[in-house]
Amino acid sequence: MKGLKFVVIGGGSSYTPELVEGIIKKRDTLPVSELILVDIEEGREKVEINYNLVKRMFKKEKMQTKISFTLDRKEALKGADFVLSQFRVGRLEARARDERIPLERGFVGQETTGAGGFAKALRTIPVILDICKDIEEVAKDAWLINFTNPAGIITEAVNKYSNVKVIGLCNVPINMKYDAAEELGVSAEKIRTEIMGLNHLSFVTKVMLNGENKINEILKGSKLDGKDTMKNIEKIDDFEEYNKKIGLISSPYLQYFFFPDKMIEKELKNIKDGKGTRAVQVMKIEKTLFEKYKDVKLDIKPKELEERGGARYSEIAINLIDSIYNNLNNEYVVNVVNNGSIVDLPENVVVEVNCIVNNEGARPLHMGHLPKSVKGLIQQVKSYEEYTIEAAVEGNREKALIALINNPLVRNVDKAEELLEEILNQNKKYLSNFFKED
Amino acid sequence: MKGLKFVVIGGGSSYTPELVEGIIKKRDTLPVSELILVDIEEGREKVEINYNLVKRMFKKEKMQTKISFTLDRKEALKGADFVLSQFRVGRLEARARDERIPLERGFVGQETTGAGGFAKALRTIPVILDICKDIEEVAKDAWLINFTNPAGIITEAVNKYSNVKVIGLCNVPINMKYDAAEELGVSAEKIRTEIMGLNHLSFVTKVMLNGENKINEILKGSKLDGKDTMKNIEKIDDFEEYNKKIGLISSPYLQYFFFPDKMIEKELKNIKDGKGTRAVQVMKIEKTLFEKYKDVKLDIKPKELEERGGARYSEIAINLIDSIYNNLNNEYVVNVVNNGSIVDLPENVVVEVNCIVNNEGARPLHMGHLPKSVKGLIQQVKSYEEYTIEAAVEGNREKALIALINNPLVRNVDKAEELLEEILNQNKKYLSNFFKED
Amino acid sequence: MKGLKFVVIGGGSSYTPELVEGIIKKRDTLPVSELILVDIEEGREKVEINYNLVKRMFKKEKMQTKISFTLDRKEALKGADFVLSQFRVGRLEARARDERIPLERGFVGQETTGAGGFAKALRTIPVILDICKDIEEVAKDAWLINFTNPAGIITEAVNKYSNVKVIGLCNVPINMKYDAAEELGVSAEKIRTEIMGLNHLSFVTKVMLNGENKINEILKGSKLDGKDTMKNIEKIDDFEEYNKKIGLISSPYLQYFFFPDKMIEKELKNIKDGKGTRAVQVMKIEKTLFEKYKDVKLDIKPKELEERGGARYSEIAINLIDSIYNNLNNEYVVNVVNNGSIVDLPENVVVEVNCIVNNEGARPLHMGHLPKSVKGLIQQVKSYEEYTIEAAVEGNREKALIALINNPLVRNVDKAEELLEEILNQNKKYLSNFFKED
Amino acid sequence: MKGLKFVVIGGGSSYTPELVEGIIKKRDTLPVSELILVDIEEGREKVEINYNLVKRMFKKEKMQTKISFTLDRKEALKGADFVLSQFRVGRLEARARDERIPLERGFVGQETTGAGGFAKALRTIPVILDICKDIEEVAKDAWLINFTNPAGIITEAVNKYSNVKVIGLCNVPINMKYDAAEELGVSAEKIRTEIMGLNHLSFVTKVMLNGENKINEILKGSKLDGKDTMKNIEKIDDFEEYNKKIGLISSPYLQYFFFPDKMIEKELKNIKDGKGTRAVQVMKIEKTLFEKYKDVKLDIKPKELEERGGARYSEIAINLIDSIYNNLNNEYVVNVVNNGSIVDLPENVVVEVNCIVNNEGARPLHMGHLPKSVKGLIQQVKSYEEYTIEAAVEGNREKALIALINNPLVRNVDKAEELLEEILNQNKKYLSNFFKED
Repeated sequence: MKGLKFVVIGGGSSYTPELVEGIIKKRDTLPVSELILVDIEEGREKVEINYNLVKRMFKKEKMQTKISFTLDRKEALKGADFVLSQFRVGRLEARARDERIPLERGFVGQETTGAGGFAKALRTIPVILDICKDIEEVAKDAWLINFTNPAGIITEAVNKYSNVKVIGLCNVPINMKYDAAEELGVSAEKIRTEIMGLNHLSFVTKVMLNGENKINEILKGSKLDGKDTMKNIEKIDDFEEYNKKIGLISSPYLQYFFFPDKMIEKELKNIKDGKGTRAVQVMKIEKTLFEKYKDVKLDIKPKELEERGGARYSEIAINLIDSIYNNLNNEYVVNVVNNGSIVDLPENVVVEVNCIVNNEGARPLHMGHLPKSVKGLIQQVKSYEEYTIEAAVEGNREKALIALINNPLVRNVDKAEELLEEILNQNKKYLSNFFKED
Repeated sequence: MKGLKFVVIGGGSSYTPELVEGIIKKRDTLPVSELILVDIEEGREKVEINYNLVKRMFKKEKMQTKISFTLDRKEALKGADFVLSQFRVGRLEARARDERIPLERGFVGQETTGAGGFAKALRTIPVILDICKDIEEVAKDAWLINFTNPAGIITEAVNKYSNVKVIGLCNVPINMKYDAAEELGVSAEKIRTEIMGLNHLSFVTKVMLNGENKINEILKGSKLDGKDTMKNIEKIDDFEEYNKKIGLISSPYLQYFFFPDKMIEKELKNIKDGKGTRAVQVMKIEKTLFEKYKDVKLDIKPKELEERGGARYSEIAINLIDSIYNNLNNEYVVNVVNNGSIVDLPENVVVEVNCIVNNEGARPLHMGHLPKSVKGLIQQVKSYEEYTIEAAVEGNREKALIALINNPLVRNVDKAEELLEEILNQNKKYLSNFFKED
Repeated sequence: MKGLKFVVIGGGSSYTPELVEGIIKKRDTLPVSELILVDIEEGREKVEINYNLVKRMFKKEKMQTKISFTLDRKEALKGADFVLSQFRVGRLEARARDERIPLERGFVGQETTGAGGFAKALRTIPVILDICKDIEEVAKDAWLINFTNPAGIITEAVNKYSNVKVIGLCNVPINMKYDAAEELGVSAEKIRTEIMGLNHLSFVTKVMLNGENKINEILKGSKLDGKDTMKNIEKIDDFEEYNKKIGLISSPYLQYFFFPDKMIEKELKNIKDGKGTRAVQVMKIEKTLFEKYKDVKLDIKPKELEERGGARYSEIAINLIDSIYNNLNNEYVVNVVNNGSIVDLPENVVVEVNCIVNNEGARPLHMGHLPKSVKGLIQQVKSYEEYTIEAAVEGNREKALIALINNPLVRNVDKAEELLEEILNQNKKYLSNFFKED
Repeated sequence: MKGLKFVVIGGGSSYTPELVEGIIKKRDTLPVSELILVDIEEGREKVEINYNLVKRMFKKEKMQTKISFTLDRKEALKGADFVLSQFRVGRLEARARDERIPLERGFVGQETTGAGGFAKALRTIPVILDICKDIEEVAKDAWLINFTNPAGIITEAVNKYSNVKVIGLCNVPINMKYDAAEELGVSAEKIRTEIMGLNHLSFVTKVMLNGENKINEILKGSKLDGKDTMKNIEKIDDFEEYNKKIGLISSPYLQYFFFPDKMIEKELKNIKDGKGTRAVQVMKIEKTLFEKYKDVKLDIKPKELEERGGARYSEIAINLIDSIYNNLNNEYVVNVVNNGSIVDLPENVVVEVNCIVNNEGARPLHMGHLPKSVKGLIQQVKSYEEYTIEAAVEGNREKALIALINNPLVRNVDKAEELLEEILNQNKKYLSNFFKED
């Protein structure tokens, strides 16, 4: 049997060892014969460090998988079976800007939601569409497993502007499931969580255990704010209380939408306290991590990686691929084209819903109507997402502004204009389609 | 021919002379044989002043219409043909609170949108439903023409919880039409404006002149911020610019949604400058007006009423009734049950759209999809409205909170909780269903 | 003021004097400065007869309208304001075939529904699309007023495959209105009928008189089978009974759908009795008519034309044009793009519904859901119509077969195949796109 | 571990040994501790025969399952875990009438579609709703697995008029899957078929093998008319040809809709040839079968049962229950509430679609739009089904007539009235709600 070829775009990411650990664990059912780590010139050092670490990990485990790294993306993609996208345009420096620019103007500064997520989307969409062109040319049957944030928007852009088979992944749904299981005192396999919404704007609507919905029990007694699993997000005390009122377990990211002012306060305090934005914190963590990775004696995923915030990243990515490759029909919550599964959203947008995954890809279960208490919010954010994608593809400033006005964390036309100007200027290097006349 | 019986709920309103002027003007086609002004004890003085002024107006014009006033609402409603609702629960003092409470906590303080409009809705819904019970009993064929704000929410509550035939009216659409005509340099009858959305959240999508859509011409050259006609709202300079970008003429109230921070600034400045909130300003105007009204030599609508902000109020109310009574099939923009006319909103909610009005009532034209740039916003606000109605009817604090979280001018669960507490407590007198256990 | 240019495609039709009578009657508000009758070589004799008759009619009435006839369609269309389409591809001979072919195989033989209407659609669609190309080139602002049957299908084809502004007209709705008024003993202007469905598959759902729905009164006591007005259709006794049960006044054409076997019997009996199909009867009437028309002393529309079956044809056509030209906002039932007005049908199909007609064209009122008792039937027939249009445009035999299977008057794949073969062969001359390889 | 209690309503059915064989095969994962066969007085003899046969089967296999039979339904249902409904109201005699009455009047005579299925639905709905009342009272957590035909209509009636958890089952989908696998030369587990529509009106839209859709390959080369598996239906030669044209594998029952006249011919020929309707044939088979069952030496399911037409009946029933009980998340095509899974049908109707089955029941995958070529047909038939259910529940003759007119195999108001009269009269014994005044 011919093994599988995996290509990791953004191979220099600090998450790579996590992914490789996943590959090792699944070796019995998922025969990866080749793994290529792809990065760009700026990431050369990191990808090389990763490459060496992976080599040691494979050696320790006696894996036969061929490992290499390269800056030649198209060459690497040739004949790929699975392409894993975990790159970050502009690296953590760009993320730091994404967090800082809005915060300085009184808005939430977060890398995937609000104006920060918007900036990230503008930078990322042209790159992912370029990658897709390569895939269409040299690996047209490959599955693109997209982790790059904002994962919902990126997956929707790929669906709308390319023919690549894509599934968008995020670790929030699986972490919400594990948290729910913990609250119920059972193992995660025992329960089924029903989750619907958009990426980083999703809600657990049901927690099924032995055919019964236990969500109210959980809501009554718990602290389900993703305390251990979502390192990225500061916690708000009253969040659980509001979840009880709406009868839903909201993704931790909903704190930005339900408590924007408090979240801004926390972010500002971190800066005042010298902790810096999350990006600044992560930069420090990354530095330490790569020092570790360089250690020639290290041949396993180091414990410290868990600090990084991507808990269960490897688990879902590899399980998903396993379910595709081995036609397992497992149920996962992923980002796919809505196509009517959520009745209250357009058919051609990407949503985060329960899907059955097999060798045909991810087929959504029928989810029906959004919970009334968050329907308007989700519809509003989806409008923002649709405008963001069009703005990015067309380099259209007016659509970019309309996108921001539709973002509940921005609104305010006057400030949105300033924000947009600043975002475009500080990211000029990555946004050539917005500066065509220059 | 038997004449028509008109009953005005809130007959002590300073707008009454305007309405009466309208009745006089339409005397040839609209035979009003009886006009009863209804008010409550607190409004006795004002309604009596109005009664005397109307008597003088009728006398001057040699009208045969029988005029009276009463505090006995049910008796007055017997056999009514048209019931005009222009009452205000809690009078201007309540409005002042509605504006002040949110503003003190950093939110827009406005009587029909945001938390202020929410408070007004909570106070008003139980009263309007009481009125509807009376109408069902003693005047079941009457048309209720509702001006009481928030007009869309009130009309929806009547539709959902009574069998009364109701049409919700607002002077914003007609003023937007007059403004558009002025910009084009033609008389208003020459054009047709297509308007869709919710009350105080509506948009001109087309301005038709001789079969051609002139909206872009207007947007290019104009200052359509309702400058002369909407006295209630402070103007924002960039509003027109944003209208151009979305290709729509937005209702002036949209300034609260597109520039919330600036609007708050303006409101705060007014207070600092000693002008007070709009309610405080209106109280002064009203005081002057009623001094005028008392003048036994006055037998016409006084010029000063125009300062009050309800331009063309009489014109639309009386024209609408004329179109019903005389089966004219005229086209007006009013508030009616959606029933599918706007595809992107639920069928059972009230929307503000172009309707053909005749003796069957107001039949909506098919409006199709909302403009994409404001679809999410309108959907979000409609969720707020639906929760507000349920909260008011049930006296349900949780739904009240969810309503506020769905209001784009509030969000922020923690502050919304404070706001709600304050609104409920300061309006306790009018919200007995929220204090049942007390 | 520059007058209007009218171009009549199919100017040799026996209906032309009716149309001209309408023009004369509306002369005060509708200034037609030029009228061109267009026909093809085969129709030269008839169009010339019509031309001479119209000249005499205009002379008698001292009309200044310039009258001419031509076989050069494109030249005639130059700068037209209104194009009236009343042509028939293949003349009455083709109609006779359309009626005979299905009847011989046990199916309803009717020129607008069933397999006969299907054949007519196949012949007509390529021609109307050719006409539309001319209009796009030389009269792009013209309104196309389409009477050519099957009017709904033809109007949908124009909407889907051209940019011409089109309204589809039929005299059934207005005749149903007049009949309803007659039953109520009032004049037609007093009532408003609400009609929805497809052309020749429509239903009166409301008959409003003084704000009240009188449809049940009519259904209880009446014989509303279009007895006087629809000459084309044999009557079935129990039709009224079924209308009562469903609470709708069905178009007389519904007899074909509710009593197909009885209708076939009647058609067969006519042939056995020597009357022939309706086409054969009409041929005789036409012959007589044109003899009349030739009479140089005739200078008015002859009474005999009423036998022909197109009652009120002129009335609606000219009233509609009047409402467009003079921006009257009158309400008419016409064929336009659904766009969501009927919730249960696709947005891009043509439906027959109440519209407000002014210089913007015909804007549908929002009709909501189809009556449940006929919803399935209408959806089924619309599928037939959509496939028919695609088959005609593409010359696609498979789609043509699927169309017939979706037609409730055909089904039966085996017989449909025979029927299709026969229809294609007997109409080969007009269906070159189905015989491309030949 | 407490075992499961199964109750079989219609335990005297000749299918019972098939079901029992299934129970035996699954004994390792599905612990049935008690099996009760319920029947009515008229079925006493057969149920006793079955009881004795089952006892012998269990004994041979050393099963510990307690077996009994009873005429006391409510007592039997107490605490049931799974209720299997396979009863037939009026026995085969009624079926014979269902087939004969329509056929004598020129319509398809079939027990589940057309007027025959309609009659069966009228008889069955009151009984199933009675059963559901019992279940609600004494076994409210039980799952009702419904095989009783017309299975879609019956399941919809249960959903609309009771609170019982129900899944409707039919062996057509699984047989279509096996046939497709056979055509591809692979085992059925290798493929996934996507099936959508209504019970006995469903279509395979995809046949997935290794992530690729092979339906066109199958359509090109095959004879997929359910030749071996569906004993109930006479085959039409051109059926496959039409399937190719629409690109779908249609359920064998579609032959009645695509070739009604030919099917009637075949049915008439059978009678002429002395074979009788299918019911008559089945009566003979049943007689032979029960003779077999009585044989005290028989202790396995006899081969001859396969002649009966219910191939794989046991397989799906037991697998489905296994997937519920053991929370397996397997994918089956069953009858459940649409709820939006098929966009083109109402939300509250029952459809036959791919579902994921676990201890929560059957959750539909999102199916999206119906294939255009059969959309109208399915919508039309669903209207028939909805009217049939309302007619049966209300005993409403007008709705019953409207149901028949909406049935594509009937239409023809005059004949439908006769048919209805005859059906009601000949089934009077079972239709007391239609004869309330008598």
